Amino acid sequence: MTELERMGQRAKEAARVLATAGAKKDAALLHAADALEQEMETILEANEQDLAAARERGMSQAMLDRLALNPGRIQGMANGIREVAAQADPIGRVLEGSVRPNGLRTAKVSVPLGAIGMIYEARPNVTADAAALCLKAGNAVILRGGKEAIRSNTAIAETLRKAVAAKGLPEDSIQLVQDTTRESSVAMMGLTGYLDVLIPRGGAGLIRSVVENSRVPVIETGVGNCHVYVDGHADLDMAAEIVFNAKTSRPSVCNAIETVLVHRDVAEKFLPEMKRKLDEKQVELHGCPITREILGDSVVPAAEEDWETEYLDYKLAVKVVESFDEAVKHIRNYSSGHSEAIVTEDYRAAERFTAEVDAAAVYVNASTRFTDGGEFGLGAEIGISTQKLHARGPMGIQQLTSTKFVIKGDGQIR
Amino acid sequence: MTELERMGQRAKEAARVLATAGAKKDAALLHAADALEQEMETILEANEQDLAAARERGMSQAMLDRLALNPGRIQGMANGIREVAAQADPIGRVLEGSVRPNGLRTAKVSVPLGAIGMIYEARPNVTADAAALCLKAGNAVILRGGKEAIRSNTAIAETLRKAVAAKGLPEDSIQLVQDTTRESSVAMMGLTGYLDVLIPRGGAGLIRSVVENSRVPVIETGVGNCHVYVDGHADLDMAAEIVFNAKTSRPSVCNAIETVLVHRDVAEKFLPEMKRKLDEKQVELHGCPITREILGDSVVPAAEEDWETEYLDYKLAVKVVESFDEAVKHIRNYSSGHSEAIVTEDYRAAERFTAEVDAAAVYVNASTRFTDGGEFGLGAEIGISTQKLHARGPMGIQQLTSTKFVIKGDGQIR
Repeated sequence: MTELERMGQRAKEAARVLATAGAKKDAALLHAADALEQEMETILEANEQDLAAARERGMSQAMLDRLALNPGRIQGMANGIREVAAQADPIGRVLEGSVRPNGLRTAKVSVPLGAIGMIYEARPNVTADAAALCLKAGNAVILRGGKEAIRSNTAIAETLRKAVAAKGLPEDSIQLVQDTTRESSVAMMGLTGYLDVLIPRGGAGLIRSVVENSRVPVIETGVGNCHVYVDGHADLDMAAEIVFNAKTSRPSVCNAIETVLVHRDVAEKFLPEMKRKLDEKQVELHGCPITREILGDSVVPAAEEDWETEYLDYKLAVKVVESFDEAVKHIRNYSSGHSEAIVTEDYRAAERFTAEVDAAAVYVNASTRFTDGGEFGLGAEIGISTQKLHARGPMGIQQLTSTKFVIKGDGQIR
Repeated sequence: MTELERMGQRAKEAARVLATAGAKKDAALLHAADALEQEMETILEANEQDLAAARERGMSQAMLDRLALNPGRIQGMANGIREVAAQADPIGRVLEGSVRPNGLRTAKVSVPLGAIGMIYEARPNVTADAAALCLKAGNAVILRGGKEAIRSNTAIAETLRKAVAAKGLPEDSIQLVQDTTRESSVAMMGLTGYLDVLIPRGGAGLIRSVVENSRVPVIETGVGNCHVYVDGHADLDMAAEIVFNAKTSRPSVCNAIETVLVHRDVAEKFLPEMKRKLDEKQVELHGCPITREILGDSVVPAAEEDWETEYLDYKLAVKVVESFDEAVKHIRNYSSGHSEAIVTEDYRAAERFTAEVDAAAVYVNASTRFTDGGEFGLGAEIGISTQKLHARGPMGIQQLTSTKFVIKGDGQIR
């Protein structure tokens, strides 16, 4: 039995206790939040060591920023855990049920998934967020973060484990894999029989690798090649605001847009207005030939790969389309199924767009940046699913549950 | 591009049309049901060829029975399709939604999964059942049945395709893979980008192979190592009826039981009573040492593998346990998570059993044989999921859907 299999076995054992732990889970979470604040110094020291090692390896400033903790960020983690504790228990809800003609009473009840594996990259706050969400939904979790953050993650996980144990729940409710080589990640993908689901969270490369290779069921998250389509009947000022917001408010996240599609009828008027705003943030445009005719040579000629790329940067692809249908067809070809928006004042275009575009979130006259558990009123999220099975869109604690049928009778036979 | 990839592409295209087909789907289904009856002769001829070939290969009588069609069975398929058509459309339901503080209106709406792959074995009625359920839920389906039934399946699928096309829906809503070698099955497991989900339906070997090898998300179905636990406070007459029914009413199905666990306190009284009933059907008992002490040497000594085996036959493993906890622990170790039952008059034992036993369906004082979409009031089923992700227990048309968030605004930015 490998070390990871032993962890898997301990996770299963812990999950069994968590499944019926009820309000103990909230007590443990609140205690864990306090503990993070009390252990702030230890966690910051561990993080300082991670940062020093990362600087030595020549990590970019942007990546160092993601890795860095400070008192405010630890406070943020603790408050995040308190918010999770404050949510209603997602376990034991009776979702539906009926009395059958033979008198059997059936009820479909929410239960935990069991043991969840998380594979993620640099940011240490994911350790606290994921642990809290999994625990609240009665699941044990095995966390496997990136090697850059291993000291920070270990300090956070140890703090959480002690806090959970202090409130009478198994400390193995939360486990962190110490081996951060590729091997441990591959081994987790084969941990059938122990893990009920594996959730990768990170860049497109990580997610593709997990989806392709895992034998444990996977929930695919987060890759976002998102579009705004500016219809022929759009309010153009609104469209310019939405494009500006969806591209520039935080370009590195999955719900930012990568391509704008503009209806031919409004392209001459809209594109210069859009460009004026985007110039404020030095957004680099990659345009189709008509876009370049209208906006001039400062626009980079767009190649096929521009329609396919999730820039995650101050870059935007622009295409003029002849019709609503061409816009929908382009989205169908290139969308990653994350978030798609139309800007229009036309009722039928709005209704057709929401019906015909196949994505986790489809918007009319709003920025794609709202695709987020908190913004949708679902509470904190463990990721945004871009698959159709089990969960789609922002995944909160409800999406970390399964169901069971409970059937009560008085001797019925078939 | 392989033939299967071309089929995948056509399925995606068909799925796009089906997603917004509304009531056309019911018209197509009703027409398909009529068509099956009209084409009865053609289908029976094709089935006769399958049967002749199977007899030549020396197929067992039980398997021949599963393969055989007759006018009654085709009528049954047609009526099954009519029942599916009569159900409410599972697509376009608004499942939840709210107005956010910024005025955004969010709605979570049910949508089809997209393109579904089915890999199944001998019975040709699965072709009609699966096609109807998938179509009703707005999904295109690629069917890959067993080689024994290829002529019957082809005749059925062609009839359905023509009927669907006659009502204005794409004939590629339903496609049948003609290649029934192992290769086509493996190729389907790699059809990511085309198939949204793969559902295997058949024996344990088939299902294990698909779960282990598929890169397309899988819904695991049907393997049932089910138990009845006769508690120390059971109504013993009721317990004997339930055991008899759960074992003998149809031993070859997944919701039949394979092991009975009996509390020590009632073993001496219960076991002879149970055996008397089971003797009527010549059920072969495999018992633990205490069982053999009580019932004598006609009981085969049970080995470890008896606790693990899904007999699907007139065989039953019997174990005497010292306590409720030992029973639950045995079930935890050996259950496939399908259907588990307790027989008891004790309130706390009943409540603990339903809370602590982790299975798709957990029963108090009823036969496990009720785990079935129709019996639960969910309509026809495409299979019984034994996994926790996406669907658990009998899967009807609701379980063949996904969701999308539709968000309407008037210019909101973040």
